[in-house]
Amino acid sequence: MTKKVIIVGGVAGGATAAGRLRRLDEKSHIIMFERGEHVSFANCGLPYYIGGAISKREKLLVQTVEAMSKKYRLDIRNLSEVVKINRDAKTVLVKNIKTGEQYEESYDDLLLSPGAKPVVPPIAGIAEAEQLFTLRNIPDTDRIKAFITEKQPKSAVVIGGGFIGVEMAENLKELGLDVTLVEMANQVLAPLDYEMAAIIRQKLSHHGIKVILEDGVQELQENGRQIILKSGGKLAADMIVLSIGVKPENKLAEDSGLTIGERGGIVVNQYLQTSDPSIYAVGDAIEVTDCVSGKPALIPLAGPANRQARIAADNISGRKKTYAGTLGTAVVKIFDYTAASTGNNEKTLRRYGMDYRTVHLHPGSHAGYYPGATPIHLKLLFTPDEGKILGAQAIGKSGVEKRIDVIATAMKGGLTVFDLTNLELSYAPPYSSAKDPVNMAGYVAANIIEDGIKTIQWHEVDEVIQSGGLMLDVREPHEQQGGMIENTRNIPLGQLRERLDELPKSEPIYIHCQVGLRGYLAVRILLDNGFDAVNVDGGWVTYSLATSAQLIK
Amino acid sequence: MTKKVIIVGGVAGGATAAGRLRRLDEKSHIIMFERGEHVSFANCGLPYYIGGAISKREKLLVQTVEAMSKKYRLDIRNLSEVVKINRDAKTVLVKNIKTGEQYEESYDDLLLSPGAKPVVPPIAGIAEAEQLFTLRNIPDTDRIKAFITEKQPKSAVVIGGGFIGVEMAENLKELGLDVTLVEMANQVLAPLDYEMAAIIRQKLSHHGIKVILEDGVQELQENGRQIILKSGGKLAADMIVLSIGVKPENKLAEDSGLTIGERGGIVVNQYLQTSDPSIYAVGDAIEVTDCVSGKPALIPLAGPANRQARIAADNISGRKKTYAGTLGTAVVKIFDYTAASTGNNEKTLRRYGMDYRTVHLHPGSHAGYYPGATPIHLKLLFTPDEGKILGAQAIGKSGVEKRIDVIATAMKGGLTVFDLTNLELSYAPPYSSAKDPVNMAGYVAANIIEDGIKTIQWHEVDEVIQSGGLMLDVREPHEQQGGMIENTRNIPLGQLRERLDELPKSEPIYIHCQVGLRGYLAVRILLDNGFDAVNVDGGWVTYSLATSAQLIK
Repeated sequence: MTKKVIIVGGVAGGATAAGRLRRLDEKSHIIMFERGEHVSFANCGLPYYIGGAISKREKLLVQTVEAMSKKYRLDIRNLSEVVKINRDAKTVLVKNIKTGEQYEESYDDLLLSPGAKPVVPPIAGIAEAEQLFTLRNIPDTDRIKAFITEKQPKSAVVIGGGFIGVEMAENLKELGLDVTLVEMANQVLAPLDYEMAAIIRQKLSHHGIKVILEDGVQELQENGRQIILKSGGKLAADMIVLSIGVKPENKLAEDSGLTIGERGGIVVNQYLQTSDPSIYAVGDAIEVTDCVSGKPALIPLAGPANRQARIAADNISGRKKTYAGTLGTAVVKIFDYTAASTGNNEKTLRRYGMDYRTVHLHPGSHAGYYPGATPIHLKLLFTPDEGKILGAQAIGKSGVEKRIDVIATAMKGGLTVFDLTNLELSYAPPYSSAKDPVNMAGYVAANIIEDGIKTIQWHEVDEVIQSGGLMLDVREPHEQQGGMIENTRNIPLGQLRERLDELPKSEPIYIHCQVGLRGYLAVRILLDNGFDAVNVDGGWVTYSLATSAQLIK
Repeated sequence: MTKKVIIVGGVAGGATAAGRLRRLDEKSHIIMFERGEHVSFANCGLPYYIGGAISKREKLLVQTVEAMSKKYRLDIRNLSEVVKINRDAKTVLVKNIKTGEQYEESYDDLLLSPGAKPVVPPIAGIAEAEQLFTLRNIPDTDRIKAFITEKQPKSAVVIGGGFIGVEMAENLKELGLDVTLVEMANQVLAPLDYEMAAIIRQKLSHHGIKVILEDGVQELQENGRQIILKSGGKLAADMIVLSIGVKPENKLAEDSGLTIGERGGIVVNQYLQTSDPSIYAVGDAIEVTDCVSGKPALIPLAGPANRQARIAADNISGRKKTYAGTLGTAVVKIFDYTAASTGNNEKTLRRYGMDYRTVHLHPGSHAGYYPGATPIHLKLLFTPDEGKILGAQAIGKSGVEKRIDVIATAMKGGLTVFDLTNLELSYAPPYSSAKDPVNMAGYVAANIIEDGIKTIQWHEVDEVIQSGGLMLDVREPHEQQGGMIENTRNIPLGQLRERLDELPKSEPIYIHCQVGLRGYLAVRILLDNGFDAVNVDGGWVTYSLATSAQLIK
């Protein structure tokens, strides 16, 4: 039997599914409807075309309708919107956007890949703001590019500090604009935790982007040239980019009576079938299972969309394949920095009441004796008993996403922090150290679980000091000149064994060094000598970056 | 009870074990004997100091005897050689190299970390060759550096094309010398397979290094200034670096009656105990289990040495820890190229009679539409039925060792090629593609296992053509101008469906494209239309690189 498959949406998920369906069956009739003009365009590249890193517009058009139709023998109909699904009759109603004409098309299986759309809140004055943009597709990109070319704006306000907001801020800055980034939360880049995102906030500031946190837009005045913030502050801007997030394009599914989840995404089972078994859905529009928490999540990322599309196509073609959920691995470039994360962050674990431990470390990207090594700020989250890996975040100039990819792979393999110590990763001086940063993270975590090494986090330091706790800095005196926690005593590690009699056994001694390693050694020495000792996780570097007591370069 | 532990060898394994022993126990008496002057030096950095990438000698001295003694409260005795072990009395005989004096020292546990030494074959004239060097330690390095500075050699011959040979060839070339590399095998870098190593051979040639394969040194004449090759060829050289391999420093162990394995390494159990349970051994001197083949192997690499040292120290301190064997993950820089590998290569699998399949692919290091993407030549080896991963090799300019690290981690997690398709790896245009090269490798492998897609390898192509097989190139005609397999027919993929009647159903059709993807699509089309079709794995790129029909830039 020759199958007739209809795909709604021709970008990431839709285009991937179409190709896979054809590879699995030369005979089936595959119709792909796309509301816009373009299919399979490089949506992740749009900010970089605006900023000029991608110089040619045609680079964004990964596949043309003609080439893709030919390569996969597809019936691609762009500028065609599916406006209704008649599930009983198994037909869709299609509107030709150019002519307004409507017609029906039948299907055996239907695949929804409608994506997600930018959230546009009902801000007073937003309708009149002619220089306010969102960024989702090629026409949006063309509009922004044309505006910049023609109007030569001098300043821009980016509203929202997520991936797209940060990428747009960087790219507009690269074009020479004065850029202000406004974010409602107390940090940018929600997938990171506060102290990690603080590094990125600093990085943005360092490159001249003004970052305003914990504030939002109250009203737009003067056709959007004047922004009134919720705090009462005012910003003037020649252009505004609104990127406060996206929401699933769920209207067609909802109108058709398909089940929509608590987070607004289309609900699918493990075969990526919606509540109607003849209708599959993939990509940004669906709710997926967060592999760590087991909760439903919206993960608008290209990788999962592609993977889901292939699995849905396999199932439509009669192969039973399941989608296991997602870790949400993500990465973003911020000038010469990279920030990447996988799994759950601390905020999420706390929200779900999950028990966890965390370690921070700052190893070099490669052997310190080989030129060019730079620190990687690495955070690992794990369960306190078995050392199951819950998530990781990393920031730095080099080798950052490599370590996150390794940890994401370890999580897929069900490995623990103990297993991280045994990973055999490529080592030569230009690439890593004999103990790779991922191995090191495993060792630091294992020390906590196996030996009960106690640590406190950066945000607990001030409390310890205020309550009169004994904070001991085991760095060399000259290192304190680069900054130090106030009211700490100093005994360099090398002198500690001889100066034990200066320390009390009656109270815990909170120890810190630069990055945590010497602090750990000091804790071992004190514990073995009958003291109660606690290490400040991540040392001065984590504390100072989180509190901005130290400024990045 | 206070333990007394003696460590023989103060570099990678010995130094790591000493630190770990102290961290686990403040009280134990730890003596570390090192025959040389330096402990814990950067042995992997030595070629780069000679070449000048590492500019300061002190960078090589990671730890000084003084600093390390203090930090870990160790009794470090350098220039002290352990010349004998009295296992019954549990003592060692130590020779002070400066004074010649000998003395005994008792131990509760003994850890051997003697390393491996360069193989120096009995070549006629070698004793008289004053400008012949091997490279193992700081004094060797100083000798080479001094020779270059004082004698200003114009030419060098490096004998042996392993990691150190290739690194030395590169570094001497960077210093401006005329460099010739001589290797007995038909390829450089034994951990790679022939067709992958062929890329590196080309790379070396491209940078002006003369590579002579399948030849060795017969004799040295004129105090080593004239090299007579086994082939009868002659080379003149101002200096010679001999780097044909290393062998375990096993004399002390052998003299003490400890079991030595078939490959010459000290035999240890999973706790890293030698045949004497009070004597542990780690590092380049021991035989380890190859995790893939299960066979004993010598893996002289820093990562495993460090890991073993920590495990041995844990066991000495009464914690039961086991060493699971090694994948032998390794990486080497060759000018602006990186070559990395993990697990077993095809040569090893064939030697052990293991059944395997292999795929070659050439994905971009990141999204093609973002500037700077370069190809990664990737080879994956796996079992034909369950898709268990057996090994991987990768070469390219960027993102190479990242992919090998991910695959090495997947192997540790027991993941299959099917799991590789589901890995969630960091994706943004500057870092990867929505389908990462590792995902792609998984897909290509899964197609072979799940759908029985047949492939032939590059070395089978000429045979197919010579026996009159039908070879079909599905690239566009203009692509053939960059080089093509002789006697192939050309039907571009886009025309294939319309031109099926030009092809026979009576014989297999061997298809190739540039990298293998369009070839795979063509195979799908032909199979679904009743033809017998076979894809040339890795396409024109693998074939041409392996046969040098295409030259790298």
